[in-house]
Amino acid sequence: MPPDLDTNMRFKFSILALFLEVAVIVLYGIFVEYDRNSATALYPHFQDVHVMIFVGFGFLMTFLKKYGFSSVGFNMLIAAFGLQWGILMQGFWHMKGGKIHVSINSMINADFSTATALISFGALLGKTSPIQMLILTLLEITIFACNEHLVTEVLKATDIGASMTIHAFGAYFGLAAAFVLYRPGLTKKHENDESTYHSDMFAMIGTLFLWLFWPSFNSAIAEEQGTAIINTYFALAACTVTTFALSSLVDKRGKFSMVLIQNATLAGGVAVGTCADLAIHPFSAMFLGVLAGIVSVLGFQFLTPVMASKLRIQDTCGVHNLHGLPGILGGFAGIVVTAIKHETRDGHLLTPAMQAAALGSTLGIALVGGALTGAILKLPFLGQVSDQNCFDDSAYWEVPEEETMPEIHSSHHEHSRFEAAM
Amino acid sequence: MPPDLDTNMRFKFSILALFLEVAVIVLYGIFVEYDRNSATALYPHFQDVHVMIFVGFGFLMTFLKKYGFSSVGFNMLIAAFGLQWGILMQGFWHMKGGKIHVSINSMINADFSTATALISFGALLGKTSPIQMLILTLLEITIFACNEHLVTEVLKATDIGASMTIHAFGAYFGLAAAFVLYRPGLTKKHENDESTYHSDMFAMIGTLFLWLFWPSFNSAIAEEQGTAIINTYFALAACTVTTFALSSLVDKRGKFSMVLIQNATLAGGVAVGTCADLAIHPFSAMFLGVLAGIVSVLGFQFLTPVMASKLRIQDTCGVHNLHGLPGILGGFAGIVVTAIKHETRDGHLLTPAMQAAALGSTLGIALVGGALTGAILKLPFLGQVSDQNCFDDSAYWEVPEEETMPEIHSSHHEHSRFEAAM
Amino acid sequence: MPPDLDTNMRFKFSILALFLEVAVIVLYGIFVEYDRNSATALYPHFQDVHVMIFVGFGFLMTFLKKYGFSSVGFNMLIAAFGLQWGILMQGFWHMKGGKIHVSINSMINADFSTATALISFGALLGKTSPIQMLILTLLEITIFACNEHLVTEVLKATDIGASMTIHAFGAYFGLAAAFVLYRPGLTKKHENDESTYHSDMFAMIGTLFLWLFWPSFNSAIAEEQGTAIINTYFALAACTVTTFALSSLVDKRGKFSMVLIQNATLAGGVAVGTCADLAIHPFSAMFLGVLAGIVSVLGFQFLTPVMASKLRIQDTCGVHNLHGLPGILGGFAGIVVTAIKHETRDGHLLTPAMQAAALGSTLGIALVGGALTGAILKLPFLGQVSDQNCFDDSAYWEVPEEETMPEIHSSHHEHSRFEAAM
Repeated sequence: MPPDLDTNMRFKFSILALFLEVAVIVLYGIFVEYDRNSATALYPHFQDVHVMIFVGFGFLMTFLKKYGFSSVGFNMLIAAFGLQWGILMQGFWHMKGGKIHVSINSMINADFSTATALISFGALLGKTSPIQMLILTLLEITIFACNEHLVTEVLKATDIGASMTIHAFGAYFGLAAAFVLYRPGLTKKHENDESTYHSDMFAMIGTLFLWLFWPSFNSAIAEEQGTAIINTYFALAACTVTTFALSSLVDKRGKFSMVLIQNATLAGGVAVGTCADLAIHPFSAMFLGVLAGIVSVLGFQFLTPVMASKLRIQDTCGVHNLHGLPGILGGFAGIVVTAIKHETRDGHLLTPAMQAAALGSTLGIALVGGALTGAILKLPFLGQVSDQNCFDDSAYWEVPEEETMPEIHSSHHEHSRFEAAM
Repeated sequence: MPPDLDTNMRFKFSILALFLEVAVIVLYGIFVEYDRNSATALYPHFQDVHVMIFVGFGFLMTFLKKYGFSSVGFNMLIAAFGLQWGILMQGFWHMKGGKIHVSINSMINADFSTATALISFGALLGKTSPIQMLILTLLEITIFACNEHLVTEVLKATDIGASMTIHAFGAYFGLAAAFVLYRPGLTKKHENDESTYHSDMFAMIGTLFLWLFWPSFNSAIAEEQGTAIINTYFALAACTVTTFALSSLVDKRGKFSMVLIQNATLAGGVAVGTCADLAIHPFSAMFLGVLAGIVSVLGFQFLTPVMASKLRIQDTCGVHNLHGLPGILGGFAGIVVTAIKHETRDGHLLTPAMQAAALGSTLGIALVGGALTGAILKLPFLGQVSDQNCFDDSAYWEVPEEETMPEIHSSHHEHSRFEAAM
Repeated sequence: MPPDLDTNMRFKFSILALFLEVAVIVLYGIFVEYDRNSATALYPHFQDVHVMIFVGFGFLMTFLKKYGFSSVGFNMLIAAFGLQWGILMQGFWHMKGGKIHVSINSMINADFSTATALISFGALLGKTSPIQMLILTLLEITIFACNEHLVTEVLKATDIGASMTIHAFGAYFGLAAAFVLYRPGLTKKHENDESTYHSDMFAMIGTLFLWLFWPSFNSAIAEEQGTAIINTYFALAACTVTTFALSSLVDKRGKFSMVLIQNATLAGGVAVGTCADLAIHPFSAMFLGVLAGIVSVLGFQFLTPVMASKLRIQDTCGVHNLHGLPGILGGFAGIVVTAIKHETRDGHLLTPAMQAAALGSTLGIALVGGALTGAILKLPFLGQVSDQNCFDDSAYWEVPEEETMPEIHSSHHEHSRFEAAM
């Protein structure tokens, strides 16, 4: 049965995943130690970020009607592998005595690093195999760790909530990969590329946990935690009111759109990220939130369709509007704020030149890295689905019977713990 | 198309929302500063309360079969606007040097203030437009902040878990508004005023996050945090067992009712609120929980139908039984406890007279404020839905096709990120 | 109507539940006091555990297509009663001056104690009445508290994440009860013993909150909290990658199975529990996670069907594979680690002999206790459902109309707050 043949990844996937896991364990055996001075004061912050990564990102992507298992499941796979890899890639830049010392702080940074791969996954959602996603995760987190080192250690720029190094990076990496992996067969709307009432409800679980814990994301590794929390809280609230206003305004019948409420309400958290722990004043944070809401809604409404049709960039979740544009907005805000205010971090004066260099390097490295990664993912043996089977869990999952398309007979499964052994 | 005409709020809603957001930002620019002495010790408590407001209240109201987008979406809108407004309204009573100083503590209180509007939203659920809800939020939080000041600063009463000032206040405010907004056309049961299997499951997400984090709600601003946590924990546990027992007892076939399990299990957290941080002994907290469960189940079963048919008060979510009656019970418990025990807070002796005055003023102000607000919401240009379109997301949302009523052709929408620009 | 007659528990259930609640309150009045020296430092850990018990366990069991109300509802009932009972049963072993002193620490232990009953509930899911479950909870937590005292106070063994005393205990207690309650009528697959697309999505909410907060579970009462957090984090991540790999490998078309992703990904948290706060090195924790993933996947795939057909043990949720086998693996890891490393806890040297004795006593007591409890639950007046009505909410719940099987006419219910009083 041809629809199945191209997605049967029984040995390819399991051997790759087991090989990577064994390799990681060997590297941990050689390089990783407990950080003996580690405190647990940041543990509540870590847990909030942890919920964002697994529940927030995972459920946000469940809006597609037949791709919920993959959204929440592959999200879990990418993050579980990515955090192990992130500890190593980030740790190699900070070894002491040839060892990487892990602490709650490393775990926060490892969770952060997975966010880049999860954002890129959003651009590619429904069109890639789990084999491709493992390879993308491996490559993207490696490149992310290099760029993050460049931005924070070499350029000494600030990006405390990672508007640039995570959000813009993950978005443009994913968009570049999507460009390379362009599928002409999907220029006509795919019948599965839409939501249902309940899939939109599940997605709101993701939206809310991201929205609620974003102050923890932006403050987790900040010096001025209180300021970062307050700025993010107000930026998100202002962004949310703006998003509702614009969502109604751009619809000719004045109706709200779930895709906008699910996504653009979060743009304020992205845009305030770079400056989150600077004393920019609550009203400036709110103003950034309003701008982010406007940019994000207009992006979803007018830019994404043009990007798909004219630029050949198919961005399933609209990550350009949630992470890309608001991330750049955050980077610009950093340039403006450091130009106006005299701010230091770790004894270094923050300068608009270095902030601009950080933004530029991030975008450049993301675009080049994403395009190269996309080219690698095009290799023919990586289990990519046919256009027809895109956005459909049954390509890679046993799906309970009633949800299976009648024409794909091979994937029915009665999800029982009593089934006869195979 | 008449069903649409009355709900098209494209310009009304967006202009009102943007105007309010801009006004708030201007006020923040004039009045709001960071609190420089703010600590982040309460941040985990804040996050628990934050989850209750957005996930707890939001999902608790998703039980209606066609009103999930509005329940969780308008809940988010109300809370996001309300918290910004609450900072101002509560802050004006505590300005220093002409400035409101925001801290984690202010954010907790701002989130608290939104709970009043969300409780009232529960009484009105399915029958109001987002324009009406923004106006209600504006007015209710303003009046709430005045009553809270009266109760805690003038009367010096205790109400640490806000049984009176939030729960009873929000419930009777909403019920008074519902009375004024009475719809004779809904005396016969509306076909959409019921749940489905999955909508009841979504509502349980709300129930559980409210139930779990209620000890944080009652202890967030308490002096004796440990006592408030322990009392609330036991009150809720005892209330839950009682609710299951009574839910079976009041059904002639002995079957449990989801509406009771979703709501009455929470009444113990309301009822123990006023006295939560007083050393009333765990068994008294449990006894209060049992009483709250009994009152709440009997209210849902016998009082709500009578209120709808005889008193012309249509209480969609039954907030009278979850917040109203248990809130009064909590107020009475405060009177009894302060009569029996010699308790001081901030150097002031708590007296039953002042507790009774606090309860009376709260109920009076809520009823008058709610009735006046209801009268304002009756103004004809506020986008209220027709009786027929009540309890239906498609009045205000683009709803995925398969869920649309066949007779309303205007609201189908394929929730895609690739749609052509309009 | 026979289908109803055998499950009508209107008076039996409500009288039993109210009697138990009143008895508990009386016992609290006599024995329970606030712990005046209690700190709230562990409150964030407590809240994570609390979410695991009510949301994690509750939603994990919602995978069955018609048993969601019971899964999440009875889970709440069992836990709400069980935590009150657990405080007493654990407290009786540590009274001071004839009083049990409750604190955040007691609340964590009380929540832990309910996990044993919830795990056993997983083995019996769909086949027992709420009356039976209340009795099981009462008996199991009593026996658990005795075994826990034996393991930690008498044998002085370590089991910080309770691989043995909670996970293996709860699993084998439940399996022994399931053996005694064997239903020959269910050897053929029951039509309701399967999932739907959306029920599998709800179950993932449970999986993720268990997965995310497991580091809090294993570290909540640990001395070396940071070590326990780090070990659990890595064990779960490694287990997850392994589970995905094996899930594809054991399927002839290479497809992932939701039952494995929902459950086996968690086995690493169980297996690392006993040694979680020992400095076993991150790579050992990851290796334990890999082993746990392998054991759990193979258990689901090959052992559970054989246990049902040959050993007459019907394990609805496969708790043997998630809690039983990984719990034993955790116990063995404890023996090995204490044999290799010189570790002390509270001034006592940990020895492999005592660890082995702890594992043996736990398994023995669980099997005997579970079998005796199963025999008691067989008493004919406890409201057990017929085989035909197994795995169906409508036996004990009012279920919204559209989800009701057409042949069971008695259980339709329009879930409205306006219904006429009965």
